[in-house]
Amino acid sequence: MAKIALLGHGVVGTGVVNILSSKAEQLEKLAGEKLELKYVLVRHDYDVDYKEKFVMDFATIENDEEVDVVVEAIGGTNPAYNYVKAALEKGKHVVTSNKELVAKHGFELMNIAKEKNVNLMFEGAVGGAIPVIHGVRNCLEANTVNSVAGILNGTTNYILTKMIEEKQSFDIALKRAQELGYAEADPSADVDGIDTCRKICILADIIYGNHIMPENVHTEGIRNVRIEDVDTLKTIGGCIKLLGVAKRTEDKKMYIVTAPHAVFNNGILFAANDVFNAAQLETDNAGTMAFYGRGAGSLPTGSAVVNDIVECVKSTGTVYPVWGAEKPEMVADYKKFAQQFYVSTNDTAEKVAAAFGEVQLVAVGEETAFITEKMTQEQLEEKLAGFNVKSVLRVL
Amino acid sequence: MAKIALLGHGVVGTGVVNILSSKAEQLEKLAGEKLELKYVLVRHDYDVDYKEKFVMDFATIENDEEVDVVVEAIGGTNPAYNYVKAALEKGKHVVTSNKELVAKHGFELMNIAKEKNVNLMFEGAVGGAIPVIHGVRNCLEANTVNSVAGILNGTTNYILTKMIEEKQSFDIALKRAQELGYAEADPSADVDGIDTCRKICILADIIYGNHIMPENVHTEGIRNVRIEDVDTLKTIGGCIKLLGVAKRTEDKKMYIVTAPHAVFNNGILFAANDVFNAAQLETDNAGTMAFYGRGAGSLPTGSAVVNDIVECVKSTGTVYPVWGAEKPEMVADYKKFAQQFYVSTNDTAEKVAAAFGEVQLVAVGEETAFITEKMTQEQLEEKLAGFNVKSVLRVL
Repeated sequence: MAKIALLGHGVVGTGVVNILSSKAEQLEKLAGEKLELKYVLVRHDYDVDYKEKFVMDFATIENDEEVDVVVEAIGGTNPAYNYVKAALEKGKHVVTSNKELVAKHGFELMNIAKEKNVNLMFEGAVGGAIPVIHGVRNCLEANTVNSVAGILNGTTNYILTKMIEEKQSFDIALKRAQELGYAEADPSADVDGIDTCRKICILADIIYGNHIMPENVHTEGIRNVRIEDVDTLKTIGGCIKLLGVAKRTEDKKMYIVTAPHAVFNNGILFAANDVFNAAQLETDNAGTMAFYGRGAGSLPTGSAVVNDIVECVKSTGTVYPVWGAEKPEMVADYKKFAQQFYVSTNDTAEKVAAAFGEVQLVAVGEETAFITEKMTQEQLEEKLAGFNVKSVLRVL
Repeated sequence: MAKIALLGHGVVGTGVVNILSSKAEQLEKLAGEKLELKYVLVRHDYDVDYKEKFVMDFATIENDEEVDVVVEAIGGTNPAYNYVKAALEKGKHVVTSNKELVAKHGFELMNIAKEKNVNLMFEGAVGGAIPVIHGVRNCLEANTVNSVAGILNGTTNYILTKMIEEKQSFDIALKRAQELGYAEADPSADVDGIDTCRKICILADIIYGNHIMPENVHTEGIRNVRIEDVDTLKTIGGCIKLLGVAKRTEDKKMYIVTAPHAVFNNGILFAANDVFNAAQLETDNAGTMAFYGRGAGSLPTGSAVVNDIVECVKSTGTVYPVWGAEKPEMVADYKKFAQQFYVSTNDTAEKVAAAFGEVQLVAVGEETAFITEKMTQEQLEEKLAGFNVKSVLRVL
């Protein structure tokens, strides 16, 4: 029998409790032993039919040698960081869906896990139910992953989908997302790209093998996405998606950004709408590969967490290698990475042609919108000096 | 050091040789030991720079106790079945991408593997590079999979994409696919749905836990897909895809078919074009989930095969449970499964309304095309008696 302690009893925590109960028999079969929820760490008591498991003091869990797996579902880093560290140091497996914690402290915590021969697992931290972390770790052993691009935040994808499909402005779409409970009262972690940034960092950590701190990643949110650009891109089969992107560069660094991108109708990222998430990988042998599914929610994230619990219980020690320490010099200057851009200006097509040569004109009217050839952002900015620029988007 | 014997040196076999060589260092690290290709079973000698590994007699491989993993890349069941069986009986792991073999003999062969405490792995048999088998086996432990629908054959998806995007007829698109090497001179295994049927059977075997023989699965190919219906569906944002579909029914049976379906613009199956494959799962806790990637080709399928080799080498015995024996009574009568249909007839909209009541009319002209309410195929056929039916498609 494996004993589990759950820290936090919010959206993810209740999903975990539900699944451990509803799938008890199946999980016992797959894990090779019964999974018993022994504790739920809460801040105050209230009435649920398993309230006898409630504890209010983490020390009870930390000091109970029977506890094999600690599930951290509190979120944030305080007190989650201290609790996770303490649990690992006591030789307990930890499963978390906390992207902030893993993005900031993953390297340190995985090292502790390895020292203690246990696991720190975090499938639910990126892409909710989608097994993208498992896929990258277990299913691409014959490959080098050259790039990953992902829609990793359901809230912003919902807002952008409403802007695209229902021509709502950002403000109105955000308000609707808040009413539906998809967005927080303070939506900045989502709409400013902070959450996506943490998630692309975690994927990049695994793929590239060194820890990348979110603060070293250029991050733009979606507050400035204009309905005009949504409409213009639609005329050429495009849309706008908030992506986390990480690519190997020719000089063996990593280009990594979080930003709204123009995405065209030729793959999975274009098709991932509403609260769905998707991650697309470019690999040398397997080619293009993508994973798609629910990026958040009580049962979807709970599903990923419970899967990790089973993997911990089945393991005989640390399963995955620890990625390397941070090397800030590995992160390329994002302004020096060549790619295509979508630009809309209040200038004439003639002026655009004079500065950019032959470009793909997307709209000519009140604004001139066009897609550039591949160039760096530095080069773009130089060319755009003297233009009345309304918007610039990277093209995936 | 793990010693590998490769049977067959065609498209998949050469991909495996390439990857074992180009990724030798990475694979050694991930597998925990060096992977050495010891033999390649060929039918006749020719010049490659590793021709010293060529053998022409399977007995050499079978009787070499040093061989840990046999990779079957011959295709078909004769002699593949005998070779795989013999290798397993000698206590060697077997990796194969042979869908016919697994769909027909998987139950028997997995039982032998289990008896000998080795593995029969076959990720490459379904969806090429896409880790859909791994995903279903390892990433959904907290779920019941209620249905799976997949574009599992790249050749037919290429043909349908050309029909949709370039308005080519089936015959012209097939010819183009043959010129490009995507379709065989005798294309029947692909275009008649036989290949897709084998693959949906394998997925269903894993998901539902009992072996399903392909001959018990209603199978339609794409020879009769009409460009007229492709065009009509396009007007309402739909397209036609050849799908393998398996769903749990209310009476705990399985509805399983291979057939062209009308698919609408709200997910991954619609977006999977050209030679790409995709599989979409409906689960109770994780919700909708999809996997997408290259369904065939030397390196993509080789990638899946090599991944399986690594999993075999890392394993300490049989990893996955054997599914149960065949229970033909588990397969539901496909004519009794309720779903929506797309129908095109040479009759009037009034006649359609008289028989079907209010329906979604898609086209009124030379032909009347419409989408029915949910009904069984039996009910549909009854209502369509006396109609001059041009085509019927299931709606996903």
